Amino acid sequence: MHIRLINPNSTASMTAQALESALRVKQRDTQVTAVNPTDTPVSIEGGADEAMAVPGMLAEIRKGEKQGVDAYVLACFDDPGLHAAREVAKGPVIGICQAGIQVAMTISRRFSIVTTLPRSIPIIEDLVCDYGADRHCRRVRSIDLPVLGLEEDPAAAERLLIREIEAAKKEDGAEAIILGCAGMSALCERLQTVTGVPVIDGVTAAIKLAEALVGAGYTTSKVSAYDYPRIKHAGVAAVA
Amino acid sequence: MHIRLINPNSTASMTAQALESALRVKQRDTQVTAVNPTDTPVSIEGGADEAMAVPGMLAEIRKGEKQGVDAYVLACFDDPGLHAAREVAKGPVIGICQAGIQVAMTISRRFSIVTTLPRSIPIIEDLVCDYGADRHCRRVRSIDLPVLGLEEDPAAAERLLIREIEAAKKEDGAEAIILGCAGMSALCERLQTVTGVPVIDGVTAAIKLAEALVGAGYTTSKVSAYDYPRIKHAGVAAVA
Amino acid sequence: MHIRLINPNSTASMTAQALESALRVKQRDTQVTAVNPTDTPVSIEGGADEAMAVPGMLAEIRKGEKQGVDAYVLACFDDPGLHAAREVAKGPVIGICQAGIQVAMTISRRFSIVTTLPRSIPIIEDLVCDYGADRHCRRVRSIDLPVLGLEEDPAAAERLLIREIEAAKKEDGAEAIILGCAGMSALCERLQTVTGVPVIDGVTAAIKLAEALVGAGYTTSKVSAYDYPRIKHAGVAAVA
Amino acid sequence: MHIRLINPNSTASMTAQALESALRVKQRDTQVTAVNPTDTPVSIEGGADEAMAVPGMLAEIRKGEKQGVDAYVLACFDDPGLHAAREVAKGPVIGICQAGIQVAMTISRRFSIVTTLPRSIPIIEDLVCDYGADRHCRRVRSIDLPVLGLEEDPAAAERLLIREIEAAKKEDGAEAIILGCAGMSALCERLQTVTGVPVIDGVTAAIKLAEALVGAGYTTSKVSAYDYPRIKHAGVAAVA
Amino acid sequence: MHIRLINPNSTASMTAQALESALRVKQRDTQVTAVNPTDTPVSIEGGADEAMAVPGMLAEIRKGEKQGVDAYVLACFDDPGLHAAREVAKGPVIGICQAGIQVAMTISRRFSIVTTLPRSIPIIEDLVCDYGADRHCRRVRSIDLPVLGLEEDPAAAERLLIREIEAAKKEDGAEAIILGCAGMSALCERLQTVTGVPVIDGVTAAIKLAEALVGAGYTTSKVSAYDYPRIKHAGVAAVA
Amino acid sequence: MHIRLINPNSTASMTAQALESALRVKQRDTQVTAVNPTDTPVSIEGGADEAMAVPGMLAEIRKGEKQGVDAYVLACFDDPGLHAAREVAKGPVIGICQAGIQVAMTISRRFSIVTTLPRSIPIIEDLVCDYGADRHCRRVRSIDLPVLGLEEDPAAAERLLIREIEAAKKEDGAEAIILGCAGMSALCERLQTVTGVPVIDGVTAAIKLAEALVGAGYTTSKVSAYDYPRIKHAGVAAVA
Repeated sequence: MHIRLINPNSTASMTAQALESALRVKQRDTQVTAVNPTDTPVSIEGGADEAMAVPGMLAEIRKGEKQGVDAYVLACFDDPGLHAAREVAKGPVIGICQAGIQVAMTISRRFSIVTTLPRSIPIIEDLVCDYGADRHCRRVRSIDLPVLGLEEDPAAAERLLIREIEAAKKEDGAEAIILGCAGMSALCERLQTVTGVPVIDGVTAAIKLAEALVGAGYTTSKVSAYDYPRIKHAGVAAVA
Repeated sequence: MHIRLINPNSTASMTAQALESALRVKQRDTQVTAVNPTDTPVSIEGGADEAMAVPGMLAEIRKGEKQGVDAYVLACFDDPGLHAAREVAKGPVIGICQAGIQVAMTISRRFSIVTTLPRSIPIIEDLVCDYGADRHCRRVRSIDLPVLGLEEDPAAAERLLIREIEAAKKEDGAEAIILGCAGMSALCERLQTVTGVPVIDGVTAAIKLAEALVGAGYTTSKVSAYDYPRIKHAGVAAVA
Repeated sequence: MHIRLINPNSTASMTAQALESALRVKQRDTQVTAVNPTDTPVSIEGGADEAMAVPGMLAEIRKGEKQGVDAYVLACFDDPGLHAAREVAKGPVIGICQAGIQVAMTISRRFSIVTTLPRSIPIIEDLVCDYGADRHCRRVRSIDLPVLGLEEDPAAAERLLIREIEAAKKEDGAEAIILGCAGMSALCERLQTVTGVPVIDGVTAAIKLAEALVGAGYTTSKVSAYDYPRIKHAGVAAVA
Repeated sequence: MHIRLINPNSTASMTAQALESALRVKQRDTQVTAVNPTDTPVSIEGGADEAMAVPGMLAEIRKGEKQGVDAYVLACFDDPGLHAAREVAKGPVIGICQAGIQVAMTISRRFSIVTTLPRSIPIIEDLVCDYGADRHCRRVRSIDLPVLGLEEDPAAAERLLIREIEAAKKEDGAEAIILGCAGMSALCERLQTVTGVPVIDGVTAAIKLAEALVGAGYTTSKVSAYDYPRIKHAGVAAVA
Repeated sequence: MHIRLINPNSTASMTAQALESALRVKQRDTQVTAVNPTDTPVSIEGGADEAMAVPGMLAEIRKGEKQGVDAYVLACFDDPGLHAAREVAKGPVIGICQAGIQVAMTISRRFSIVTTLPRSIPIIEDLVCDYGADRHCRRVRSIDLPVLGLEEDPAAAERLLIREIEAAKKEDGAEAIILGCAGMSALCERLQTVTGVPVIDGVTAAIKLAEALVGAGYTTSKVSAYDYPRIKHAGVAAVA
Repeated sequence: MHIRLINPNSTASMTAQALESALRVKQRDTQVTAVNPTDTPVSIEGGADEAMAVPGMLAEIRKGEKQGVDAYVLACFDDPGLHAAREVAKGPVIGICQAGIQVAMTISRRFSIVTTLPRSIPIIEDLVCDYGADRHCRRVRSIDLPVLGLEEDPAAAERLLIREIEAAKKEDGAEAIILGCAGMSALCERLQTVTGVPVIDGVTAAIKLAEALVGAGYTTSKVSAYDYPRIKHAGVAAVA
């Protein structure tokens, strides 16, 4: 089985980090390849960044479709363009936010999410609601650090994350933590060790769910909402 | 005051129709200009079409910002890229779905929405939820006609719409109807006359709400979520 | 166009203040007249006050109907009798709570409301829910000052409001503030200047939305829920 | 213990019918007295009727307070002025809609409500939501008969109710039915016998819940929201 | 009328305490008998304890059915097996959590719940949601004391409860408090006296609601969900 | 990795069928073993059946813990005792209802569920709500056939299921179907072929999700709610 990991932003080091997380957990006979568009924002911080990243991400999916990719993982916690991607792909498309939430709802009753910038909090809260976890998610928190700050000073990022996770345990009664940015993936194991609470990295979760869905033979429903985009008759091939 | 009407798809005739609806209701001293990107799908039917239309739409907003535009109306009922647009604009950005819903919630207690294709129903249902109208919106219905079909055979479209509005009155107890596609704008008045139920065209609603907000001096909050996109330090100007 | 501003309580100075806010933002050719019943509570603080104010308010609407008024704004943040008023009026009836919320949902993703007395908090929370803003409204706060205290010591009221708005910014992540009492209208501009966050006065918002709805030709749906009250056959003219 | 049954409308025959239902189920040592204001609409059909009935109803509660009444039952299914009444009363105030719903949520998992006029459906739906029964209430139905029609032609009313209850059983999977009008009280037993599904009359339910609360020593919380209305200092006794 | 109080755990002293609370409020001609299974956990602290207690509780109901018991009160705040019990019983089955919530929603607009261990908080939150009180319940709090700790050191328990109730008044704006454990029943009156806020004991509430429902003639609906368990044809009598 | 499939009812043929579904999709190096208690109902049809099945199911989990089982799949669509099971197990415990829903929310936007008896509909609706799929699940339908009827006349069951799935496609706009009973597992593939809509069998889904979670190293959070049951000090080992 071939899973394509797509980092929607154009920062190759983040793509590499996500791939590393994927390789650590994938089954032996799963092939994981990772790509990122080169014409998208260097990081996704808010709705405008998302919007500018989605066409490049969809282009990668269309490439993947020609190459016979079985499933896709979108490695950005805002799950940008997730519904669009599912229209374009035959196989399952997994967003790391939705994947993290599905795992958290299975191994805990109440969890919190820790992301980078405060401006992303309402975006993630709305996703939590879309994915049906309003009651299970105690709070979306932020460490007030830009996405690229995670790479620039990982030690500082780790300190901020530990402080916020401890606050989530104490103030929220969080039984599990979801890391709210693909760029935190490499820190996941250490954070869990230090704080003693299950810490969920969306990339890891998504890769395993993608394997599960492909392994069971599930593909994206082409009945109605996720059907392929219609080819428009005005001579303009919309998104095909 | 200068309001820019942006049709996110690339079909100029639809832009013209929306402009006509806007001119019919605008105040005397309001300037309304209408544009559409030329590199976007010819119609927006689903998430992938939306995604491909948003960057072009945002480019139009950035142009408008330089020209001193006071507010924007996005003339596509899926409100594609609405949050992104608000990050980029200083003044208010009005989506025609949200505008139609705000009007419907003010002049009725229960309403239904009639859109074009069935695949758009879940998209609009999710918007209804985001805009807080779950309890007020009885049902999202479709006439199972592609967007461009509205222009190709307006008489047939009108017949289908009347039939669906009558069903909404009878089966849903709808007290008002929102037209779920900018391309239905020209039919609004006739549909109301024929069916005897208030019929709300989102373009009309949005233009008037844009005037109202600008008239009161409201601008988009730049505190947190709708703040301008950050200029990223990797030498890549993300969306600025 | 003629908009009638109705202050449901009997304190004329509050009516005057609301009118002043209205006049500041109305279009040139809009006529705004303001009235208050004389047999209602001097301020609305809770459900019983509301109940005692509504018949007088409805009487004002029935007077307005005979005078050809085009729309009504109810200048009390509890929106008392809003549904009833819509049954009695032909044109749109705008409540300042609903208007403030519609504006806040358009220019921000998350907002807080600051009202006078703690006892009004659940009332406003329930309105927030009715208007579909549960997710967007972070918190309803109070300054624990009676309504008339706003007029008696405006400087103290301003200090309390600033403190609470700053708390809303810091603790709630509020991107906009709605003033939860018509009597705070005059303080709106100063509060925004001092705190740097958009501050929304419901009276201002409602006047502009009323203009928008009338300008677009919308009237209250007379299909079902908001139909005129039935004239009862027991020889008793109920509310006609 | 003394329970006062207040019919908010001014139709004495409806008051008498409600009293009869109350007397049928009250404990031996409970005193039930029934009153109705004389200056309120002859029936409550919509929000405006409600509004015109509430001050008269509150006046009855204030009278009852001087007479040492222990609890009040409001015999109108819209529960008009329920929150206001609780501010004015020391003892519990029971609305027949809330009472019917609490019983239905205890003896069934899914129920439907059958009321008189279609215009009351959204009002009752909103109460269902306020009382937390959205998921338990399958549907609010109407027989499209004015309230006073129940008295004018009880046989016709019964036929319409049976038809609607049968539809609720079949289409809604309703396991219990709540009668959505105090004026249906006398038909309750027959409807249950004929249809074979538990039929709940709000008046009956409310009287028994009132006895229960008084018997346990519960009174209305005077902490915050339901505290007595403040006496205003402008020399105007608001609602005292 | 005969009400059977069932304490699902096997600690007889807790059964005795609950019975005492019941006897204090029951009507003169109500017979209350109390039992507990002997093969269930000594206290219910979490889902596994619940699961181990339910079959024994159901056995007590089946015994009660043969003895002509009219209604049952389940004296554990998690309402374990409540739906199952209703399938087995003819008369009403009242859970003390649901009963406490129904009372709190009648005498206050906003309340908080105080339970024993933190692990029970999500369980109770989910019940609050099932019973439709999400908006009315400000917060579920715990004193972090095991259930049996309430009996071992009642003075310490009282101190912890007072501290938590005061916090609920101040931080939550709670207008009433529900005690989140049957074992707190004996402390109820003192807590209300000391804190000045209505304090609701679920056992007391449930006994009175059981009397109310039986008094009105209500029995559990046997239409669909709460119908008696089917006798299975494989020769194995499932639960009959 | 060792996954234990537990059929909570005592019908061995259903256990065998579930195991067959599991073996069809498991990875090569996954060991799946299947058990069922022998003292539980022959089928689970409602809350009482659930309650009688859970202690036996928990006993199987405790056995599995001693044998080093890595994860558990509960093969009954009501997910009976799921929270309890998670308290007792170290590794993940997957309910087939939750698993089916997580898959459906990933490969479609709107789905319906088809179960056996009407009495199970509210139970499943409440699970749908608990798992956050209210908006995504159009409707829970039933074929009105007892669980064991699936085995007795599979051809009839298939006809009924096809009819109901076709209705779900047409009336609900369902884009995917979840089979609402473990006993339907064997029919899954044929139903999908005949109806042309993705049909999801919970057993299959759960096995793959269990593999995914174990493969990623996730275990049940032992922080708070899902912590192991406390050993009680009254000399009675509650559930250990």
